[in-house]
Amino acid sequence: MIKVAINGYGTIGKRVADAVAAQPDMEVIGVSKTSVSAEAFIAGKRGYPLYITDLSKREAFEKAGIAVAGDVEEMIKKADIIVDATPGGVGAKNKPIYELYQKKAIYQGGEDHEVAGTSFNAHANYKEAIDKQFVRVVSCNTTGLVRVINALDQAFGVRKVRAVMVRRGGDPNDIKRGPIDAIVLNPQTIPSHHGPDVQTVLPQINIVTMAMIVPTTFMHMHTIHAELDKETNRDEVLKIFREHSRIGLVTKATKITSNAELREYTQDLGRPRTDLWENGVFEDSVSVLDGKEFFCFQAIHQEADVIPENIDAIRAMMGTVKDPAESIRMTNDALGFVAI
Amino acid sequence: MIKVAINGYGTIGKRVADAVAAQPDMEVIGVSKTSVSAEAFIAGKRGYPLYITDLSKREAFEKAGIAVAGDVEEMIKKADIIVDATPGGVGAKNKPIYELYQKKAIYQGGEDHEVAGTSFNAHANYKEAIDKQFVRVVSCNTTGLVRVINALDQAFGVRKVRAVMVRRGGDPNDIKRGPIDAIVLNPQTIPSHHGPDVQTVLPQINIVTMAMIVPTTFMHMHTIHAELDKETNRDEVLKIFREHSRIGLVTKATKITSNAELREYTQDLGRPRTDLWENGVFEDSVSVLDGKEFFCFQAIHQEADVIPENIDAIRAMMGTVKDPAESIRMTNDALGFVAI
Amino acid sequence: MIKVAINGYGTIGKRVADAVAAQPDMEVIGVSKTSVSAEAFIAGKRGYPLYITDLSKREAFEKAGIAVAGDVEEMIKKADIIVDATPGGVGAKNKPIYELYQKKAIYQGGEDHEVAGTSFNAHANYKEAIDKQFVRVVSCNTTGLVRVINALDQAFGVRKVRAVMVRRGGDPNDIKRGPIDAIVLNPQTIPSHHGPDVQTVLPQINIVTMAMIVPTTFMHMHTIHAELDKETNRDEVLKIFREHSRIGLVTKATKITSNAELREYTQDLGRPRTDLWENGVFEDSVSVLDGKEFFCFQAIHQEADVIPENIDAIRAMMGTVKDPAESIRMTNDALGFVAI
Amino acid sequence: MIKVAINGYGTIGKRVADAVAAQPDMEVIGVSKTSVSAEAFIAGKRGYPLYITDLSKREAFEKAGIAVAGDVEEMIKKADIIVDATPGGVGAKNKPIYELYQKKAIYQGGEDHEVAGTSFNAHANYKEAIDKQFVRVVSCNTTGLVRVINALDQAFGVRKVRAVMVRRGGDPNDIKRGPIDAIVLNPQTIPSHHGPDVQTVLPQINIVTMAMIVPTTFMHMHTIHAELDKETNRDEVLKIFREHSRIGLVTKATKITSNAELREYTQDLGRPRTDLWENGVFEDSVSVLDGKEFFCFQAIHQEADVIPENIDAIRAMMGTVKDPAESIRMTNDALGFVAI
Ligand SMILES: NC(=O)c1ccc[n+]([C@@H]2O[C@H](COP(=O)([O-])OP(=O)(O)OC[C@H]3O[C@@H](n4cnc5c(N)ncnc54)[C@H](O)[C@@H]3O)[C@@H](O)[C@H]2O)c1
Ligand SMILES: NC(=O)c1ccc[n+]([C@@H]2O[C@H](COP(=O)([O-])OP(=O)(O)OC[C@H]3O[C@@H](n4cnc5c(N)ncnc54)[C@H](O)[C@@H]3O)[C@@H](O)[C@H]2O)c1
Ligand SMILES: NC(=O)c1ccc[n+]([C@@H]2O[C@H](COP(=O)([O-])OP(=O)(O)OC[C@H]3O[C@@H](n4cnc5c(N)ncnc54)[C@H](O)[C@@H]3O)[C@@H](O)[C@H]2O)c1
Ligand SMILES: NC(=O)c1ccc[n+]([C@@H]2O[C@H](COP(=O)([O-])OP(=O)(O)OC[C@H]3O[C@@H](n4cnc5c(N)ncnc54)[C@H](O)[C@@H]3O)[C@@H](O)[C@H]2O)c1
Repeated sequence: MIKVAINGYGTIGKRVADAVAAQPDMEVIGVSKTSVSAEAFIAGKRGYPLYITDLSKREAFEKAGIAVAGDVEEMIKKADIIVDATPGGVGAKNKPIYELYQKKAIYQGGEDHEVAGTSFNAHANYKEAIDKQFVRVVSCNTTGLVRVINALDQAFGVRKVRAVMVRRGGDPNDIKRGPIDAIVLNPQTIPSHHGPDVQTVLPQINIVTMAMIVPTTFMHMHTIHAELDKETNRDEVLKIFREHSRIGLVTKATKITSNAELREYTQDLGRPRTDLWENGVFEDSVSVLDGKEFFCFQAIHQEADVIPENIDAIRAMMGTVKDPAESIRMTNDALGFVAI
Repeated sequence: MIKVAINGYGTIGKRVADAVAAQPDMEVIGVSKTSVSAEAFIAGKRGYPLYITDLSKREAFEKAGIAVAGDVEEMIKKADIIVDATPGGVGAKNKPIYELYQKKAIYQGGEDHEVAGTSFNAHANYKEAIDKQFVRVVSCNTTGLVRVINALDQAFGVRKVRAVMVRRGGDPNDIKRGPIDAIVLNPQTIPSHHGPDVQTVLPQINIVTMAMIVPTTFMHMHTIHAELDKETNRDEVLKIFREHSRIGLVTKATKITSNAELREYTQDLGRPRTDLWENGVFEDSVSVLDGKEFFCFQAIHQEADVIPENIDAIRAMMGTVKDPAESIRMTNDALGFVAI
Repeated sequence: MIKVAINGYGTIGKRVADAVAAQPDMEVIGVSKTSVSAEAFIAGKRGYPLYITDLSKREAFEKAGIAVAGDVEEMIKKADIIVDATPGGVGAKNKPIYELYQKKAIYQGGEDHEVAGTSFNAHANYKEAIDKQFVRVVSCNTTGLVRVINALDQAFGVRKVRAVMVRRGGDPNDIKRGPIDAIVLNPQTIPSHHGPDVQTVLPQINIVTMAMIVPTTFMHMHTIHAELDKETNRDEVLKIFREHSRIGLVTKATKITSNAELREYTQDLGRPRTDLWENGVFEDSVSVLDGKEFFCFQAIHQEADVIPENIDAIRAMMGTVKDPAESIRMTNDALGFVAI
Repeated sequence: MIKVAINGYGTIGKRVADAVAAQPDMEVIGVSKTSVSAEAFIAGKRGYPLYITDLSKREAFEKAGIAVAGDVEEMIKKADIIVDATPGGVGAKNKPIYELYQKKAIYQGGEDHEVAGTSFNAHANYKEAIDKQFVRVVSCNTTGLVRVINALDQAFGVRKVRAVMVRRGGDPNDIKRGPIDAIVLNPQTIPSHHGPDVQTVLPQINIVTMAMIVPTTFMHMHTIHAELDKETNRDEVLKIFREHSRIGLVTKATKITSNAELREYTQDLGRPRTDLWENGVFEDSVSVLDGKEFFCFQAIHQEADVIPENIDAIRAMMGTVKDPAESIRMTNDALGFVAI
């Protein structure tokens, strides 16, 4: 059993914890919080040992009825590998302690590529992560792009990608962040950081991305436009997407035309936390013009798509499973997840 | 086993179906849809026989891979009782067919009180519904008001209630309805219909309500201001709320101050469809001024709070359980639900 | 003086009326409303004779203190030309009456190209409209696209355009339309109607557009990606935009990165109704990659950009000014408008 | 001519500047900014001398083509009175410099009452401010409450007020602040600070307020519920509101039922920056129950209602006009403003 600690039990961390707990070859040895909150109660209900960043707050936790197992340092010592899901930038500051105890650690997309040196996507470059001490799972947007671009590149060769990211303003439980009634260019310069970020995993891809932020909370929406090397057609592309275990096709028959209806669907399906772990490619949007120009819309659930990638990264880094396909299958099976 | 049909498998209907299926003394004998959609696939996955309003569309359903059990009339004939969860106003049009087959039927809050003649809330007037042919479960907002007002009235006597409803603009999956950036008075005249609607269940209550609509999708927010007959204090009121099986207290320790964070919490709790079946009264807001003036904020999950009430109404109307407390306990137990 | 009637005094109509009134060679002989509303009072305050669709409502108007000049038919008879700004689809139904009285009429983008036979943009094809009886000013989105594409095409030749429209859900005063928290593909198929609509003005352009709707009220946001025939660079493109009287550049020094801040700016500038009549191209976004690939972001104020185009269309159709540049200059001068 | 400096040329400051410039007895001798931005350009276009907080940034301003008159200290020295419209909390830090140069200064609602010692509303307590060195114009919400409560109190005596504030999340140009899809209790405890804040102007009023924040940008919405001493009726109340020069009645005939439509109306009226300086009381909502219970809805334009109050405060503090009615009349006349 791989002993996994989750440092930062927030939006990403709480999902990683549940996904780890579901795997046959891993266990959650602890999760961490900075202060008393709803999520701390949830950790308790799930039975995850709770470690805190500042032991002087132990009393506050205990007064609220939440047991404290110790501080983060203790948690780190007990783990084989730490999934660092602290807010962007904090992960980098945690690196010395992981080095001190010679522990492996996984960073999230909020950290720079350089913090880990290896950026990861299970379908694209699993093998690069094997036995590494530090790996970074690329961000939600980049993960969503990489899955589709890599699949197209494997099948047809990708000459160039021009993509537009229409990003959610804040996560559903984030009551501080806006915008309320605005479309914000983020950044207004071209390209946005997503293109270069894709290249940390797929360095050969010619890609330019543009990004904006809109007043929604659930799922980003991408338009992907790619020029392919080999001629193909819509049916061939759909076939490749259908066979990809982390690309889902939102079919026409569902009448779903938005991220909101797609969320309702994953909710009705009983997915934990309504999670869409796969890319939500709108089947009707998949188009191939003149044999070589590919277009589609896809919805990317920012809170969820990186979760299975974190699990695969654990196996790669621990070196317990060398075959990407095998790890991906194990992860998906344990989550009971078949792409929609 | 009480044979229940759900006519109108939408936001309310799909939740009622799952709640019925969870009860030991009831079964879902069918649900109905008008056209192919994501929800029709869900009915299939749940194993509910699907009936359709217009048999000429059978082919469209079958082409999409959805089995059709027959038309709505057939479904009605097979049922002991129908939960009508069609859109507001359609229920009234369905009354003749329920009468024709001498079936019992439950209406939702979108129908006028007069359609059923009896308006229902399990804690307040269960016994009025016993053996009735037609009963209407009052709307989400009214259910939320009745629970608190009735509890206060039982304990202290309620002299008058002045409440403000800040309503969600549309349900989470509703992509048509706004507003986008507006606070809409609905209506601008005083009182809104909620006051009189409370009186269909609690005729003795002096109540004036005011209502607006804001650009949110998940849960209404109420301010309740009441003058009490008997003197009391905050602790006594909290005690009564804590003991009420459908009033939940959002505690200070959770740091939750909004409907969005409350939703995250019910989602983390693993509630099906993130449902908050109980009133979400904010503990810190519960105030008693000068012994007789009560104030609080409460969040009301529009899609969920009426669901257990529908289940209790079924038992009352079928006459199988005469004691309200017994039915409420059975319903909550079967849903595995303890108020937060 | 050209006698202009505005049929449909709503979002577009009230702006056209004020723009007509500001011109030296035109006058507003009447505007029309269907029912008493805030806008009817505004027509009164502006001194525009108000005609109504249904004379049986005259009393309702007069009771509210609004003078009625007659019915729409009378208004049409008095006009040289009618700007039809009724809701999409109603314009087509009005065509017979314009034909009956042999009047010229301008349609808006909510009508099909075929209703008028000629689609119009002042910079692109003014001369096609000269002396025509019916002309359609293309929609806000199409107007915004045509201005930029035509300018690039004149200067460098445009090989192809791939553009994404992120559209506002409803106008600022529209309290019915959503979405509230969703990104809606509209349509999910590719292309959206905007590409073909551009071709009604610029038939030679190879263009594919994709469109979504987001919960904002003020200005659409476009990403434009174009491949050019001739090599160029960023400075040359900016020069062309700067010289274009209906393309404005949102400079870096303003720190504006969103439609909301851009609106604040036009509001601070004292523009009537906060109108951005020109395209709001974000200067910092204007990019040329490898000499031939153009990218930019632009904000399009849906309520305003078509207004000066309507004015130019009037002159072209009346045949009073044959030179597009002369009419454009007259229009802009009379509005006191210099692109930001 | 009273020499007025505006320290902090933002949302409130830029409006105060224009209102000062419109008065016959005042002039703007300077406005201040911290960095180059759209608003700095606007100050230039309006011809207001621009002072900056940090002279080391002079070059950045000048490079952007914006003339700098000096630093804030110089501006303060030249003024008779400073309107401090810096962000909440900064005003308090500026107090020593106003004291150093023995200048009068007006604070906004973001500062505590204690900073100035006198809180101000022209209709309620103008005379208290006469000749004072420091005065604080109460916040937008408090100003809106005070106008109505004071008017009712003068006419009928107010026994108690229970009011609910549904507040806009951020100003229209604020792209950072949310919430996006949430109703946030702010605070969840009762009362909100608005009640006590009303009492800084009207200490005799028994008032409890509750406040939430919703995802809108333009105007707060209040429900006001008051118990009166003397019996009255709806018509008498409406008469008092109609005669109040800063309470406007949104009439039924306009069909306006929301803040968004009200904004459209002030925009159509040509109000500078779409400003609703008066309270927007919804006529149809004004109700009197059993002679003594008053209810209404009102919209409060957060950016605008305090502007005329700042102007009146200047006259009171300078001692040039002793009669409140005279100053109010002068202010309104100069703004060309008659309540809707
Ligand atoms: N939310 C998303 O949409 C999303 C998607 C993909 C990747 N990411 C990335 O995942 C990472 C985490 O983001 P999130 O959205 O889950 O953040 P979050 O704020 O929801 O959660 C972060 C958690 O870390 C805890 N924390 C803060 N400082 C800590 C410290 N010093 N030590 C231990 N715990 C600490 C907080 O209490 C919180 O529970 C970031 O790098 C982010 O960029 C986020
Ligand atoms: N959504 C809420 O927040 C909410 C809360 C409380 C009560 N209600 C009430 O519940 C009722 C249902 O509302 P909803 O939100 O679930 O609506 P909905 O639109 O989500 O679902 C209605 C369903 O009925 C089906 N339907 C339509 N016409 C039909 C017909 N003639 N025969 C059979 N099925 C038909 C539709 O296909 C749809 O699946 C209404 O009375 C509403 O007022 C709704
Ligand atoms: N609003 C936009 O963003 C926008 C942008 C560009 C083009 N357009 C197009 O402009 C046209 C008008 O749109 P709008 O947004 O101004 O609509 P609107 O609804 O704001 O205004 C339409 C007006 O027409 C009046 N009207 C309705 N039926 C009428 C009839 N039979 N006869 C006379 N008047 C009638 C209504 O009372 C209303 O005042 C549409 O074709 C629309 O597609 C709108
Ligand atoms: N915006 C509202 O809705 C509103 C309504 C009523 C009252 N108020 C109050 O008015 C005050 C100003 O708020 P605002 O919304 O106009 O803020 P704002 O942020 O829009 O403007 C503040 C301005 O002050 C400038 N500034 C910042 N620090 C400064 C300093 N040290 N010296 C000089 N200038 C400085 C900023 O550049 C900015 O231009 C606050 O007290 C606020 O609470 C705001």
